[in-house]
Amino acid sequence: MKKVVLLRHGESVWNKENRFTGWTDVDLSPQGVEEAKEAGRLLKAEGFHFDMAYTSYLKRAIKTLHTVLEEMDQLWIPEEKNWRLNEKHYGMLQGLNKAETAAKYGDEQVKIWRRSYDVAPTALSPDDERSPYQAACYRHVNRADLPLTEALIHTVNRIVPYWENTIVPSLKTRDEIIIAAHGNSLRGIIKHIKHISDADIIGLNLPTAVPYLFVFDDNMNLVEDRFLGDPEKIKALMEAVANQGKAK
Amino acid sequence: MKKVVLLRHGESVWNKENRFTGWTDVDLSPQGVEEAKEAGRLLKAEGFHFDMAYTSYLKRAIKTLHTVLEEMDQLWIPEEKNWRLNEKHYGMLQGLNKAETAAKYGDEQVKIWRRSYDVAPTALSPDDERSPYQAACYRHVNRADLPLTEALIHTVNRIVPYWENTIVPSLKTRDEIIIAAHGNSLRGIIKHIKHISDADIIGLNLPTAVPYLFVFDDNMNLVEDRFLGDPEKIKALMEAVANQGKAK
Repeated sequence: MKKVVLLRHGESVWNKENRFTGWTDVDLSPQGVEEAKEAGRLLKAEGFHFDMAYTSYLKRAIKTLHTVLEEMDQLWIPEEKNWRLNEKHYGMLQGLNKAETAAKYGDEQVKIWRRSYDVAPTALSPDDERSPYQAACYRHVNRADLPLTEALIHTVNRIVPYWENTIVPSLKTRDEIIIAAHGNSLRGIIKHIKHISDADIIGLNLPTAVPYLFVFDDNMNLVEDRFLGDPEKIKALMEAVANQGKAK
Repeated sequence: MKKVVLLRHGESVWNKENRFTGWTDVDLSPQGVEEAKEAGRLLKAEGFHFDMAYTSYLKRAIKTLHTVLEEMDQLWIPEEKNWRLNEKHYGMLQGLNKAETAAKYGDEQVKIWRRSYDVAPTALSPDDERSPYQAACYRHVNRADLPLTEALIHTVNRIVPYWENTIVPSLKTRDEIIIAAHGNSLRGIIKHIKHISDADIIGLNLPTAVPYLFVFDDNMNLVEDRFLGDPEKIKALMEAVANQGKAK
């Protein structure tokens, strides 16, 4: 049996301000740090012993991972960071307030930008200061791979090869791994694993810092998947995420 | 030119209590966290852009590294943890107060245990709860490699192969790396790089969280080495470390 825990980062300072974040490298909020600690305590209580960790290039995911591992006393395990685990790139929307954007463009347009499978927001200019071309951490990445905006389909298309070519092969020698990442990059993995349709994946709202366990047999057939923790609390958190894009 | 920064972890809660730590996985003290932040600010101000980080399996080094990288906004860089970067193993002394041990056995004996090149403290029993055989993080390491006590010579002998076989080769494709580790594992690297004699290496007292820069040419010939920061402050810190083993 192989166990994979997917973990969306804790609340960030922009989740709190209700702004489109995408690849903007914002920090965890104090509440986000607490959420990550709680996830760590839960994973420790459930007896997880990870032998590998994956995370994105964005500090809210990296710090969530480090906080969880510290809480579990497993800071020593190997970790690999990859830009493919980054959040969906929100293009020109990055930095804008979600409710203000909804008030300006209408709930429907914002819902399309946030939730349509294949309609991306307007792309950033390559020389926009928000462009990944301008950031040191993406300098070694092939430019053709770097997005200036993304719809969910693009996020899925860049995360699946990383899942298939890096994470799955690592499970040959590892039994329990954790992936600390973002709402949409994790949606991409979940869509792929569970064969969820383009239409249905939009309705999956991952709560922040709630560990989502996937158990596979040794041939990587999915045996079980479930959120860890109190089901009522998780349901309330998922509804809160779903409501974030509304004007008020 | 290749730049390697060696960084001893910030003050730990046992540095503060003046206890022999070795492989005991104690945390940073609040002052240790502040020292690490200051090191990060200094490295950022000096314009370092690391492309790889190495650290030990011990949280005081890992957290020093993470604190430094966060301060530099470089949390995304790859990091590799290895037990060979761990502190010198102090055998049966682990957990004992340095001044009390000095009062009991005499300054001279403690100085021998702390500072002789090849006299190790009494070894731990393999089934001692402090033994690395009992810890999850060393389960994948060959037992023959795992120490139950060490003199500095043993620490040097396990760190040099890691330097030669892992770190130096990585400099073919990297220009600036940081190694966050411990007083004695870093002594091992410095002894090797600078061809310091067995007798003289004992006199080198690394201050906590002061970046020590080594610059190499492309053939890995040492061009320059110096501590970064205020020379007067560094001198005072080195003297404080040298005096730690005294009875009072």
